[in-house]
Amino acid sequence: MGLKTKAEYIESINQMKPTAYMFGEKINSVVDNPRLRAGLEATAATYELAQMEEYRDLMVTESPLINEPVNRFTLPPGSIEDLVARVKINRTLGNWVGTCHQRCTGLDCLCALSIVTFDIDQKHGTNYFEKFREFLKYVQKNDLTCNAGVTDVKGDRSLNPHDQADPDMYLHVVEHRDDGIVVRGAKAHQTGSLSSHEIIVLPTRALKKGDEDYALAFAIPNDTPGLIHIVGRSSLDTRELDGCDIGNIRYSKYCPTVIFNDVFVPRERIFLCGEVEFAADMVVRFSSYHRQSHGGCKSGKIDCMTGAALTMMDYSGTERAGHLKQKVIDMIHRAETLYACSLAASYEGKKENSGTYFIDTVLANASKIHEGREMAEATRLMVDVCGGYVADLPSDKDFTNPEVGHLVKKYLKGKDTIPVEDRIKLFRLVEKLAMESADTISDIHGGGSPEAHRVTILRESDLDKRKRAAKRLAGIDE
Amino acid sequence: MGLKTKAEYIESINQMKPTAYMFGEKINSVVDNPRLRAGLEATAATYELAQMEEYRDLMVTESPLINEPVNRFTLPPGSIEDLVARVKINRTLGNWVGTCHQRCTGLDCLCALSIVTFDIDQKHGTNYFEKFREFLKYVQKNDLTCNAGVTDVKGDRSLNPHDQADPDMYLHVVEHRDDGIVVRGAKAHQTGSLSSHEIIVLPTRALKKGDEDYALAFAIPNDTPGLIHIVGRSSLDTRELDGCDIGNIRYSKYCPTVIFNDVFVPRERIFLCGEVEFAADMVVRFSSYHRQSHGGCKSGKIDCMTGAALTMMDYSGTERAGHLKQKVIDMIHRAETLYACSLAASYEGKKENSGTYFIDTVLANASKIHEGREMAEATRLMVDVCGGYVADLPSDKDFTNPEVGHLVKKYLKGKDTIPVEDRIKLFRLVEKLAMESADTISDIHGGGSPEAHRVTILRESDLDKRKRAAKRLAGIDE
Amino acid sequence: MGLKTKAEYIESINQMKPTAYMFGEKINSVVDNPRLRAGLEATAATYELAQMEEYRDLMVTESPLINEPVNRFTLPPGSIEDLVARVKINRTLGNWVGTCHQRCTGLDCLCALSIVTFDIDQKHGTNYFEKFREFLKYVQKNDLTCNAGVTDVKGDRSLNPHDQADPDMYLHVVEHRDDGIVVRGAKAHQTGSLSSHEIIVLPTRALKKGDEDYALAFAIPNDTPGLIHIVGRSSLDTRELDGCDIGNIRYSKYCPTVIFNDVFVPRERIFLCGEVEFAADMVVRFSSYHRQSHGGCKSGKIDCMTGAALTMMDYSGTERAGHLKQKVIDMIHRAETLYACSLAASYEGKKENSGTYFIDTVLANASKIHEGREMAEATRLMVDVCGGYVADLPSDKDFTNPEVGHLVKKYLKGKDTIPVEDRIKLFRLVEKLAMESADTISDIHGGGSPEAHRVTILRESDLDKRKRAAKRLAGIDE
Amino acid sequence: MGLKTKAEYIESINQMKPTAYMFGEKINSVVDNPRLRAGLEATAATYELAQMEEYRDLMVTESPLINEPVNRFTLPPGSIEDLVARVKINRTLGNWVGTCHQRCTGLDCLCALSIVTFDIDQKHGTNYFEKFREFLKYVQKNDLTCNAGVTDVKGDRSLNPHDQADPDMYLHVVEHRDDGIVVRGAKAHQTGSLSSHEIIVLPTRALKKGDEDYALAFAIPNDTPGLIHIVGRSSLDTRELDGCDIGNIRYSKYCPTVIFNDVFVPRERIFLCGEVEFAADMVVRFSSYHRQSHGGCKSGKIDCMTGAALTMMDYSGTERAGHLKQKVIDMIHRAETLYACSLAASYEGKKENSGTYFIDTVLANASKIHEGREMAEATRLMVDVCGGYVADLPSDKDFTNPEVGHLVKKYLKGKDTIPVEDRIKLFRLVEKLAMESADTISDIHGGGSPEAHRVTILRESDLDKRKRAAKRLAGIDE
Repeated sequence: MGLKTKAEYIESINQMKPTAYMFGEKINSVVDNPRLRAGLEATAATYELAQMEEYRDLMVTESPLINEPVNRFTLPPGSIEDLVARVKINRTLGNWVGTCHQRCTGLDCLCALSIVTFDIDQKHGTNYFEKFREFLKYVQKNDLTCNAGVTDVKGDRSLNPHDQADPDMYLHVVEHRDDGIVVRGAKAHQTGSLSSHEIIVLPTRALKKGDEDYALAFAIPNDTPGLIHIVGRSSLDTRELDGCDIGNIRYSKYCPTVIFNDVFVPRERIFLCGEVEFAADMVVRFSSYHRQSHGGCKSGKIDCMTGAALTMMDYSGTERAGHLKQKVIDMIHRAETLYACSLAASYEGKKENSGTYFIDTVLANASKIHEGREMAEATRLMVDVCGGYVADLPSDKDFTNPEVGHLVKKYLKGKDTIPVEDRIKLFRLVEKLAMESADTISDIHGGGSPEAHRVTILRESDLDKRKRAAKRLAGIDE
Repeated sequence: MGLKTKAEYIESINQMKPTAYMFGEKINSVVDNPRLRAGLEATAATYELAQMEEYRDLMVTESPLINEPVNRFTLPPGSIEDLVARVKINRTLGNWVGTCHQRCTGLDCLCALSIVTFDIDQKHGTNYFEKFREFLKYVQKNDLTCNAGVTDVKGDRSLNPHDQADPDMYLHVVEHRDDGIVVRGAKAHQTGSLSSHEIIVLPTRALKKGDEDYALAFAIPNDTPGLIHIVGRSSLDTRELDGCDIGNIRYSKYCPTVIFNDVFVPRERIFLCGEVEFAADMVVRFSSYHRQSHGGCKSGKIDCMTGAALTMMDYSGTERAGHLKQKVIDMIHRAETLYACSLAASYEGKKENSGTYFIDTVLANASKIHEGREMAEATRLMVDVCGGYVADLPSDKDFTNPEVGHLVKKYLKGKDTIPVEDRIKLFRLVEKLAMESADTISDIHGGGSPEAHRVTILRESDLDKRKRAAKRLAGIDE
Repeated sequence: MGLKTKAEYIESINQMKPTAYMFGEKINSVVDNPRLRAGLEATAATYELAQMEEYRDLMVTESPLINEPVNRFTLPPGSIEDLVARVKINRTLGNWVGTCHQRCTGLDCLCALSIVTFDIDQKHGTNYFEKFREFLKYVQKNDLTCNAGVTDVKGDRSLNPHDQADPDMYLHVVEHRDDGIVVRGAKAHQTGSLSSHEIIVLPTRALKKGDEDYALAFAIPNDTPGLIHIVGRSSLDTRELDGCDIGNIRYSKYCPTVIFNDVFVPRERIFLCGEVEFAADMVVRFSSYHRQSHGGCKSGKIDCMTGAALTMMDYSGTERAGHLKQKVIDMIHRAETLYACSLAASYEGKKENSGTYFIDTVLANASKIHEGREMAEATRLMVDVCGGYVADLPSDKDFTNPEVGHLVKKYLKGKDTIPVEDRIKLFRLVEKLAMESADTISDIHGGGSPEAHRVTILRESDLDKRKRAAKRLAGIDE
Repeated sequence: MGLKTKAEYIESINQMKPTAYMFGEKINSVVDNPRLRAGLEATAATYELAQMEEYRDLMVTESPLINEPVNRFTLPPGSIEDLVARVKINRTLGNWVGTCHQRCTGLDCLCALSIVTFDIDQKHGTNYFEKFREFLKYVQKNDLTCNAGVTDVKGDRSLNPHDQADPDMYLHVVEHRDDGIVVRGAKAHQTGSLSSHEIIVLPTRALKKGDEDYALAFAIPNDTPGLIHIVGRSSLDTRELDGCDIGNIRYSKYCPTVIFNDVFVPRERIFLCGEVEFAADMVVRFSSYHRQSHGGCKSGKIDCMTGAALTMMDYSGTERAGHLKQKVIDMIHRAETLYACSLAASYEGKKENSGTYFIDTVLANASKIHEGREMAEATRLMVDVCGGYVADLPSDKDFTNPEVGHLVKKYLKGKDTIPVEDRIKLFRLVEKLAMESADTISDIHGGGSPEAHRVTILRESDLDKRKRAAKRLAGIDE
């Protein structure tokens, strides 16, 4: 036990036997499927960096729960320092993998549970917190990766869970047994679910009386019987499968829909069951942490995109063009804005009843509002700087074609001192950074819809204080 | 001869024998290759609509050159009405095909040539205009599609054409013969080159003394010996090839790199050769017309994206959400802005020496500056409205899988009254609209780089008039 | 009769005896009050240009109603050319006066009335159209300026007119008499009411059954008994009064609140009275025309601001700074966008039942949406380019102070070749362009609130057509 | 000695005898001039809050230099906590005064000097640091306010200081004496110079060999002979002077140009003299601190503007309008963004050689880039929410006019339950918040030009790290 190496992590995933489908076919080995493997490698980077001299201090700390060194991706924050480390790790990893590393969502669930289970117990006399801590010990001791099963498929958005024509559109209990419960439903956009040892389920929205069977939180292994992972399509998905024109030669991302087809959850793994009034808190905590995480990893991704843009300028002979430098500045500014908001949200965090530290929600949501708009803008700027070949670069297979390969290479040459192969590789990376749907669309919808972030900052801000200030200056008596 | 039906057009393309490669393999039949065919179908729509009752009046007019009805895509504008029709046709087609129809670039070359060849002859006593008119008659009588060979691959961007380490980085004459010239080089981003009968080449930039061999304009069939079309990769390129998860079930886009590997151009098809001082005018005319075209087709594409967003709201039960309506308004506003600028550029056009009408360049470039930013924003808004399944929707192959197909469909259901298949199809279309690189990146780089559009409006605006107004109001004597 | 010279216009205003207050004191002479005079001069420019060789053709045309040359500011458009002329005149004037010329609102009322009175008569058999035409003849023959009494003060915005605690918060009939009506209420933001011969009143919003007494349109002289003009404060209002540090040495703007304190309106001047269902049409027509007008005058104002920015660059030695040129481009782009949308709205206009031409409302509102955001941005850019002295430039009185005047001038010197006085005047103009509230706030609220423009483009767009296009491409049967 | 009360502060300013002019006339008493007094009151708020129970802990701390409690506005930061306190105090004050409190610039000079004087001494063996510490003790013991004399008037911007036609366009030494130096020049935009006890001068730009006489830093009392304060005009400047329609009834801002007309500076007050290579560091340190300060005070001002907007919604009956809530969210988001960037810049600060803590410059500049754009946008949003009366509200003098006062009040009534006087006061405050040039233009130009902030984040970012990340992912060997 203890910290896993990258190899141990991959082997541990290899030991699991999840039920998974992609393009209508059953997946026999996650580890050997090139597309899933590229996603797995991104998560594996969180293990790899924890072993690297340069990053170990950032990534590893001692857990007060098990009194052993743990990867911070298993650690609910117990201090401001812990909160800040989350953002810095994510920025480092975003730049390192150039995509989503897919290990933050599970941690964000752990963080949320470490606060809310305590509060439920306080009110209801339940023992969720103790059960959760046992689970957390297991996660920490085995350096596990968890997945966040939050987003239900939702059916008709205008209807509440129990008003849906099909009651399964939100995950719910279909059978209460002595030893546990049986649940049914589906969770969408399950980033890295097959790279995760455990699936942690939380409610996706506030719930009301009548929704008791939907008020659910629990954790189960990703290969629990009845769990079915459907790996959907993303825009560049056949590239890894074909082993050609991959772009990011190391990492990628995938986000299955996970169907819970009457899955048994043992009692000791249930962390919320029926206490509807805590559903909102659960989802608010999770999504606030998750928005904080994004401020780190997405600024890191912009760093990487900025590097790509700058390198392309070096390769194409445009490195002195003033208007391109302005665009690079615009990219940097966006990265720093996301980062600053998440960082400030962390430094301004506060201790909750359970001892876990929670971030400032207004600042965390301020970061996500920027992400929802500005990642698209940063991407556009990168494409603007890099040029039109992001759209239609010939394939590596063209370059090796005996009849035309030499011609294609001849004409893709940029600056004379730069090998054409490097310029080609860089274009391919830019394409991946810009056009990978699984990654780019999470900029918009990851961590809840853009509107949710906006509503949150209105709700969480002290509006009366602002009104009082205005009235005082206007000379209006209260 | 005369107007071609859609079938005749496709058959005429089928008769051509271009040298083409895709993914390192030679393409034997353009018409039978599903990916190229989807592009071809988009161009075919320009023939189809010309035959449809509803659109004929918009699409077809009589050419004063041949005194026969012609498709407007072969007609340099001879009036303000002609200029305006260009924009309206493009908007209609953009909405109709939901992507680029790929026939405007060739027309924009014809328009540019119809002005500049006349002016060269006036100065140099050459006979380019007459040769061009003969070519134009041929195009009109046969209702041909032309391609714009404008964008050279450019090598080191900081160097002039004749200063490049490899002189072939800009297309140039390598041999002058009595009956014509032999040219070498390559043109990038040749939208629909294999759907075009003719490739029209123009210079890509202003040229100076010393660049004479680069000052070139001509037209040749797409299967001229030595021409090699390399069909590059775009983000969703394997979808059509696999015949699955296509999204836009009718149309797509592709943009080869076309290599001119010592290609002979007969004398009667040469429209500029050595008159360097006209290169700038040629490219400015072409790109101004092309920016005008974009204002039409891209607003039409936003129309289609708006329709997709509104339909998704109907399907998911979010049609009454105020914040989504605001986003739809933002989409409409962007479409109307592109359209208005192009339309105004057209109405404010002026007659040139040759009799062709040219648009107002400031207004045309104003449209393109908006496009360069706002198409990305419109796309982001569509994705925001439609939700996260744009990123990772299960494949059609999953839906037909006997073990899990019914479950996948069950959980992708939106509003109860809407067949799940329709919602799935719509998500797939949205993915195509948002994530097709060949299409979306032309929003940024089509018609020249964003900086080119900006520089143009500064250069073409009357700055002194503005200064005089300010000085008069400030009370400053001139 | 016939076209008035500038001097005749001013004298005609001088003949009127309106009841007016400013800063709590009664105004005895509009013409002699320096602040009102500066506004009057702006309107006078519409007379002056009509007499100038350079602009006469643009400003003057023959009215088919009176078969005499008229100033276009008295002419409801009878053709596309007339619609387009409106925009071009406004752009010319915006650049010429560097502020609002204050004569468009009345014309926009005339335009609206020339359509709606006809339609009311068609339905109700009334004779509003004839009465309106008589009034219009009078306006044209005497080259009068009219003011638009549209914006009611509105009281509690959440309540309908007849639900207000005080029934006078929307202008309404308090007495019906044989020879006319007596009205009570107040209209806010009455741009140039004291520079206008006539006040034209329209409803400010859609009305319903029960609001009959609020459904009102009429015209009365600005000095009708009971009319009280309260000239409110604007940010730089004491500058003209003090005759110092004026900035724009020629023109300014003012916008009284006009109180209708039981004002009698003779029957022949009533153009709507009780037909509630036409109130909405009246206001939509007026505000659409007015939004079109703004696209002209505000782009003209940006022209003038651009000229000020460029001149300041010349004066301060920054004329070669690349980043400042980029900002100038951003300013030009905004001007062209407003202009293009208004121009396109005009060219795409259509003939109404009465013979008047109406603009395309979607495009006109697209222009105003840009104005609401982009005028503030253009202003910010101008200030950015010009520098901090816009905020705190010493007074002209400091420059003439014998002890310190020479020192202040010494230190305000920019480029050695430019007289310091000119640089000082230019800073003062920039301050006026940027900080005059009466002018800048109409960018946001003129022609209805920003939200009104947005709602309009949603309502007026063909959403079903867009949906059909998306469904067809997705392969969804209707 | 020790902390001054507000009254003591005002009296201490009253004791000074500066030479000051406004509108061409000599100012005899700063304290009794209503316009200057309103600025003085804003600075006085920094003293007042330090005495208030609620804010004392935030505002007051013990200085390790004098081992006494000091107002934080005299304390160069000696810890991360000190850096963070700067931002929080500024946000609190921005909300409290609704404008600029004018005491941060002097502190930012003290901060810069506390770092750079130490470094100069290290290199040159000078004793600037000791002299500076003596000055700082004096400031702390007497709780003084200092002013930042940084921005030279600059003359021709394309020329270096010593290349100007008039060598005085940048402040410089004109005489070296045994006991000190005599300096000549002028500093523009000297926010609150007459509310400050001391004027601290720093260079305004990087300097080179040949500029030795321009490399200057020192501190002198604001009434030193030869110092002339010219209080320039700002947009609402006559309101306080007239005592009517003031808007913010408590506070305002003014920014003189300060002329150094051969001013003697004693040797012990000189902190830089001729060491040209430190000029850049001096200005970078100062402006970075100042940009950090702005992130606090300007977010506080947005808080106050948000309060005004929300209160206006309450008063006008629009508090439930969804689109207005969206605008309020946009305002809050901007405030939080400025705040987050400044806060993050503080938490990520580092200790310098002298022991002073310096902020992260990239994050501080990221804040200022937002400010330069977003304050204008926040202001526009406030005006949009509040309505058109921001432009042209009748004067208080109209309300008290016996003939029309009751009518004006009648028609300005909003919701029935709200006294009309309160709504009027609120409109007036909004006008002040939106249209006060001295305050709003510092959003753009305060702390250096917008371009300076952009160049800084490019220069200070680790671009190579970003490039390396991109190359690694693209598979490019370095």
